Amino acid sequence: MGGDHAPAAAIDGALLSVERGYATREQILLTGSGDAIRAEFANRGESPDGFEIIDAPDSLEGITSPVEAVRKRPNNSVALGVREVQEGRAEAFVSAGNTGLVVATATLNLKCLEGIRRPGIAATIQGEQTPFTVIDVGANPQPKPLHLLHYAIMGSALYHDTFGKDVPRVGLLNIGSEDRKGNPLVREASDLLKQSAPNFEFVGNVEGVDVFHGACDVVVSDGFTGNVLLKVSEGVAEYMMRSFGRLLGEAEVAPEKQQSILSKMLRHVDFSEYGGALLLGVEGFVTICHGRSKGPAICNAINFALKAVGAHVNQHIVAAARSVPAAT
Amino acid sequence: MGGDHAPAAAIDGALLSVERGYATREQILLTGSGDAIRAEFANRGESPDGFEIIDAPDSLEGITSPVEAVRKRPNNSVALGVREVQEGRAEAFVSAGNTGLVVATATLNLKCLEGIRRPGIAATIQGEQTPFTVIDVGANPQPKPLHLLHYAIMGSALYHDTFGKDVPRVGLLNIGSEDRKGNPLVREASDLLKQSAPNFEFVGNVEGVDVFHGACDVVVSDGFTGNVLLKVSEGVAEYMMRSFGRLLGEAEVAPEKQQSILSKMLRHVDFSEYGGALLLGVEGFVTICHGRSKGPAICNAINFALKAVGAHVNQHIVAAARSVPAAT
Repeated sequence: MGGDHAPAAAIDGALLSVERGYATREQILLTGSGDAIRAEFANRGESPDGFEIIDAPDSLEGITSPVEAVRKRPNNSVALGVREVQEGRAEAFVSAGNTGLVVATATLNLKCLEGIRRPGIAATIQGEQTPFTVIDVGANPQPKPLHLLHYAIMGSALYHDTFGKDVPRVGLLNIGSEDRKGNPLVREASDLLKQSAPNFEFVGNVEGVDVFHGACDVVVSDGFTGNVLLKVSEGVAEYMMRSFGRLLGEAEVAPEKQQSILSKMLRHVDFSEYGGALLLGVEGFVTICHGRSKGPAICNAINFALKAVGAHVNQHIVAAARSVPAAT
Repeated sequence: MGGDHAPAAAIDGALLSVERGYATREQILLTGSGDAIRAEFANRGESPDGFEIIDAPDSLEGITSPVEAVRKRPNNSVALGVREVQEGRAEAFVSAGNTGLVVATATLNLKCLEGIRRPGIAATIQGEQTPFTVIDVGANPQPKPLHLLHYAIMGSALYHDTFGKDVPRVGLLNIGSEDRKGNPLVREASDLLKQSAPNFEFVGNVEGVDVFHGACDVVVSDGFTGNVLLKVSEGVAEYMMRSFGRLLGEAEVAPEKQQSILSKMLRHVDFSEYGGALLLGVEGFVTICHGRSKGPAICNAINFALKAVGAHVNQHIVAAARSVPAAT
């Protein structure tokens, strides 16, 4: 029920996942207002048969903060989705709802993976040559150095398992490539990353300008800076897309060429294409989609979450975390 | 002598400033290897007459850190440029040299403005509708909340004086628009910014995606996050320019149209167009240009610095800073 286009986007995404063969109807549970969900199916002239609908009695309408949602509407659609994962009936939960609410609900209810103290959100971005994963993009704005080591381990397990890269290269987001740059957090994290590399290769500091040029596969960051990286990328991309569209029109490029150029470009910079952001470090998988996600983005998120489940990313995280110092 | 194209870019910039009527030859001092500077003039068939050349005996070749430069090559071109400002012979120093070296040399040698404890670097970016100034983009990766208030005052004085906006709107870079988002630094800074607004209007938190859409005129940030904002913008813009260039070619758009579209677009996203980044909070003006700056960017920086000097930005900063709590 979350997101700007709920519940239509979720229904479209679920139907598309089945159509593309990513999942069967029986593999997909839908949480939210049962009436609204059934009405959406009816609108499409589709039967909901096969999909399990879990009716969430508490609506989130009028709720302004995650804390308020958790306290006053405990049976909202996000809570019920997370509960399915917590109680083992679902392996992953995909939501386009409020990020703060999804993260809060998941971290309050799902156990941390063995050896991991704080979850982090991993977002995968299409770079110039290859995709790269940024972790954390907002779960924890004030991590400790050890959490950044855990992010490296988790991001690398995900990157390895979804893109097939043997030993992902991890970069530490910093404001210069020199070793002693930045603040105490990155300096201490850098020392940890140099010593402990069970499932990745540490390539040192990376700057914002380098990450789009393939400087590394996994960018490790505190959640505050990582979130700014993601949002700024989005802001610049939107701005440039609009400017290019206008300039193509002004230059009187043939309309069908304009269309083709812009839609190819959009595929490069649509950061939702890689299937949403995964909250890593908890038991099960939780995917946070952009609020404005429509059916295709939700479908990609379902597919990406299924890949992570099928590749046993969490087991690989736990195995790699065993070989590093205990959390302090 | 700093930057990727030294000393040619600086000479080109100086000559262009004279040609465009921004400055007279007599207003421009050139610091660096006198021989190299004179050779560049000779290459262009130009006389250096009128320009004052200040010969810097210490080259920075082989130097790997600002600390090493300050200790081992005290009479380098950056040190001599800053000295001209320090001793009142110049009002502004423009350099495309290493940012760390320019900032270190300036902050070690120039007094802080009355009421300001820590300088900040202000970079102005072309947004979708209007330009916006981000401060700090790297002088201080670990500021205190009060420093962020000073950044707001300094950025607003600059924005007011250079773009003529009566009461600039200040936004605090954060990871959500809600009031209590982020980390302790931004929460405490937010409280200060709400109470004290001598020369700006505080519009609250802004996110990375909003700043390009005109959410505010001045974006206040710690130097770590602000630097990431700037570098990510640059990275995404470069990546998209290349992708668009390729797609225009593939779509067989007429070459002259391709050229015109790309060069118009470049003007939007060339972040050096607004005249480099100004180190604010010290007596005098110090402009840090991108290392890859060529003549036109240096010329813009000279012009922008002269504007700041002529508009008495520093006096306006001091006047506004008098009305806020003393630095702690």
